[in-house]
Amino acid sequence: MPKISEKAHAMPASPIRKLVPFAEDAKKAGRIVYHLNIGQPDIKTPQVVSKKLRELNLDVIEYSNSEGMINYRKGLQSYYNSKNIALEVENIMVTTGGSEALVFAFMTCLDPGDEVIIPEPFYANYNGFAVMAGVKVVPITASIDDGFALPPVSEFEKKISPRTKGVLICNPGNPTGRVYSKQELYALEKMVKKHNIFLFSDEVYREFCYDGEAPYSVMNLESIHDNVVMIDSVSKRYSMCGVRIGAMITRNRMVMAAALKFAQARLSPPSLGQLAGTFALETPQEYFDDVVKEYVRRRDVLVEELNTIPGVRCPMPNGAFYCIAELPIDNADKFCRWMLEDFQHENQTVMMAPASGFYATPGLGYNQVRLAYVLEVEKLEKAVECLRVALEAYPGKK
Amino acid sequence: MPKISEKAHAMPASPIRKLVPFAEDAKKAGRIVYHLNIGQPDIKTPQVVSKKLRELNLDVIEYSNSEGMINYRKGLQSYYNSKNIALEVENIMVTTGGSEALVFAFMTCLDPGDEVIIPEPFYANYNGFAVMAGVKVVPITASIDDGFALPPVSEFEKKISPRTKGVLICNPGNPTGRVYSKQELYALEKMVKKHNIFLFSDEVYREFCYDGEAPYSVMNLESIHDNVVMIDSVSKRYSMCGVRIGAMITRNRMVMAAALKFAQARLSPPSLGQLAGTFALETPQEYFDDVVKEYVRRRDVLVEELNTIPGVRCPMPNGAFYCIAELPIDNADKFCRWMLEDFQHENQTVMMAPASGFYATPGLGYNQVRLAYVLEVEKLEKAVECLRVALEAYPGKK
Repeated sequence: MPKISEKAHAMPASPIRKLVPFAEDAKKAGRIVYHLNIGQPDIKTPQVVSKKLRELNLDVIEYSNSEGMINYRKGLQSYYNSKNIALEVENIMVTTGGSEALVFAFMTCLDPGDEVIIPEPFYANYNGFAVMAGVKVVPITASIDDGFALPPVSEFEKKISPRTKGVLICNPGNPTGRVYSKQELYALEKMVKKHNIFLFSDEVYREFCYDGEAPYSVMNLESIHDNVVMIDSVSKRYSMCGVRIGAMITRNRMVMAAALKFAQARLSPPSLGQLAGTFALETPQEYFDDVVKEYVRRRDVLVEELNTIPGVRCPMPNGAFYCIAELPIDNADKFCRWMLEDFQHENQTVMMAPASGFYATPGLGYNQVRLAYVLEVEKLEKAVECLRVALEAYPGKK
Repeated sequence: MPKISEKAHAMPASPIRKLVPFAEDAKKAGRIVYHLNIGQPDIKTPQVVSKKLRELNLDVIEYSNSEGMINYRKGLQSYYNSKNIALEVENIMVTTGGSEALVFAFMTCLDPGDEVIIPEPFYANYNGFAVMAGVKVVPITASIDDGFALPPVSEFEKKISPRTKGVLICNPGNPTGRVYSKQELYALEKMVKKHNIFLFSDEVYREFCYDGEAPYSVMNLESIHDNVVMIDSVSKRYSMCGVRIGAMITRNRMVMAAALKFAQARLSPPSLGQLAGTFALETPQEYFDDVVKEYVRRRDVLVEELNTIPGVRCPMPNGAFYCIAELPIDNADKFCRWMLEDFQHENQTVMMAPASGFYATPGLGYNQVRLAYVLEVEKLEKAVECLRVALEAYPGKK
């Protein structure tokens, strides 16, 4: 049997997926499992999307342009303008989800052996994209103590090496729920300008900002226009993760021209998804208002309840639909598995994501979990109640 | 401005795309351009697909499993069984087009610096996927003299080095239209077994075999089950290139398990496309019969007419919907551009793909073009007439 590649060995397995068989067994045993482990929202896709998809009558489902359908790109331009991000159509390339946008950005800007600094905890799949591009992830630790604020520039400076080619942030943040302030981003801007590196910013949770927080895009950091590559996706915005439509946004023409070669090699992003994305642009503002209201209710219930459990600490996030909670336990991987395998409270249990998978520094996050508030308030309340009882019963309690 | 990567520089631009502006100018000047340059068929997508898409009523367009929707994979299993390819569902991973399947296969099996042998002329985007994976393409030249038969094993043996990790074939072939015989594949099987390397086979044109030719899949080469990775796609089969649904097929469990890690990093293939693929499985056999009949008519007209032009040589292909023609010219890149820029016959001209882009060996294919018979017979006849007149008028005639 021929051997698989070193790259394949280096590719990380999904940290959450390891728990899936235990969740399945729990369900087979008749238990209710509250899934707070995933980013698949239960929110409905805007009705205009399915309505217009049903009206489609395509003779041939053709390739689109590699950079995306021109009408969709024009629609995106208007969308960004409405978000105070002034773009030309040429700055926008449609991709197969935010995932492909980041792979293209990495491959276009970074060579094997180059380093990219990422504040941790971070979205675990960044590791996989880095392996694909042969890029080394250099973590810089954000702390639960200040709600996962962007680490100060002095910390970034310590990590800069001759191989440092970029910084990647996620704003609003998965898994932290943190929305970075303008001041945090201005500080980053200076550092990026000084070292003339790339700044990749994953802004797929733009619509999910709470408490009057307005998201500030890296596209508006004027002194580093040529350094910035923004990653976007319609997955969360319209709760249509399955259409696999994202975008790579940059004003750097060299980057865009080079990324287009990667895009051409794979011919085109999905046409049906691009049509869905185009239709979704007609989503009325009330849809977003309702969704934000719903997430705020859920967040408030979840985070406030969590903080009433002895030994649990969970900073109030102001964006996305995740929070990181510190638990009074020995090991979150063990605890999350135990919750599924050995625990039930009134025949219910909770599936959470152990946070260790979101840290690149070994040993960090061992007593933290990520919770996604993608369930209704009633279920969240039951889930937190389960967690409270579980923490009392858990043999590895600290 | 930070520098883009070496990889981005190495990434090849699409050889056909360079001609697009000239075709656009020709159209702006009021000329009719017959597009024989592309693989986007004019054949209609099966009606059952658009009918069932119109009946969809999705509350939330969700992610699917990373390996694809289970019902679709089961449907694919039945499809392959009907094509005499006996598979388990576990051997099938759904991908975002054949493109992603090949990227996953390369990244899973090959490391940067590894070599993959590919008979040329070959599908130009293989170069791009190789650059993405850091893999070196080692070409082995097939000849127009024997209709682009698979080169003998002795030629492959000459190219084997300590870094050779695989062979990639396309069967039926783009751009040659060649369908390999069982004997050709058996010879390849022996060689692959002897050197214990991977055999990647792009079989996306399976449905397009003519003159009683039955396509023989590498999945049926029994002695090398663990060496074989098959690439598939629904793009051509159902003329729905835009859905971006393909598959990576292998019985090698290590390869499949590792490829799944790459698949998980990008979450899931497009859900709407997978639904289209599922619906397409109900396509009646008459659809394919009609399509094959239509392509045979087109091929016969195109190839027979081409061979009546003095100095033109075009072997009769027995699969896919392409042919390679040798023209009595100095340089096909120049000629194809001249056809668009400086030529018209009764206000018409033809866009073709210069074949040099399909060869990795410098200097080869300079007097060859690829023609895709993706237009109706009447238009093909007019296109060949244009070409005949053009060859008389072309200043670089040989």
